Amino acid sequence: MDKVNLAQKFGQFNEHWSPKIVGEINESYVKIAKLKGEFVWHHHDKEDEMFFVIKGKLIVRFRDKDIQLEEGEFLIIPKGVEHLPVAPEEVCVMLIEPKSTVNTGNIKNDRTIDSLERL
Amino acid sequence: MDKVNLAQKFGQFNEHWSPKIVGEINESYVKIAKLKGEFVWHHHDKEDEMFFVIKGKLIVRFRDKDIQLEEGEFLIIPKGVEHLPVAPEEVCVMLIEPKSTVNTGNIKNDRTIDSLERL
Repeated sequence: MDKVNLAQKFGQFNEHWSPKIVGEINESYVKIAKLKGEFVWHHHDKEDEMFFVIKGKLIVRFRDKDIQLEEGEFLIIPKGVEHLPVAPEEVCVMLIEPKSTVNTGNIKNDRTIDSLERL
Repeated sequence: MDKVNLAQKFGQFNEHWSPKIVGEINESYVKIAKLKGEFVWHHHDKEDEMFFVIKGKLIVRFRDKDIQLEEGEFLIIPKGVEHLPVAPEEVCVMLIEPKSTVNTGNIKNDRTIDSLERL
């Protein structure tokens, strides 16, 4: 059992849209990711997903509205809700989601990451 | 579905050791709390518990060591592990834990909170 310093973990990688596991809690992972640009529209059939902005700004686009998250803000996206994360500039986020969660949800494409690295 | 601004939520209460629910994700709650002073030794039989320090410093005491958490650091305490949170000065924390989690775990005393407020 060790504490996790997020700034130190974010210093260990540079790639975008590639979540890293930094913790395990009950049936969920705590992950961190750097995001930049636009992802893909998707939803998660069975998993609620939490986006917590550690540094920067993140826009989460829904079919009927956009929600902009600043540092110190989080959003929980309920299962089944289609969404598109967009980061005009690089943003550092912490994610909490069940271990079963795939980054692209119901979509399988070249952005899908099947095996997550642990930091 | 709305975003949560932690600073704004922390501005809504002052009492210590009284976690407030600010989000619900799968089978867990996201809670925030202000802590000051020493809590009680306890463990959670069935629930891992995540402490994330938003502002201030938190010492988590274990039977064999202390872990000091600063802003931007988190610790996941596995189920069954006895611990004692200590905050020499006021600290603002975010907690993630299963809905079944009671703040004092296996101990029932005047620090136990049975019904949590939602912010």
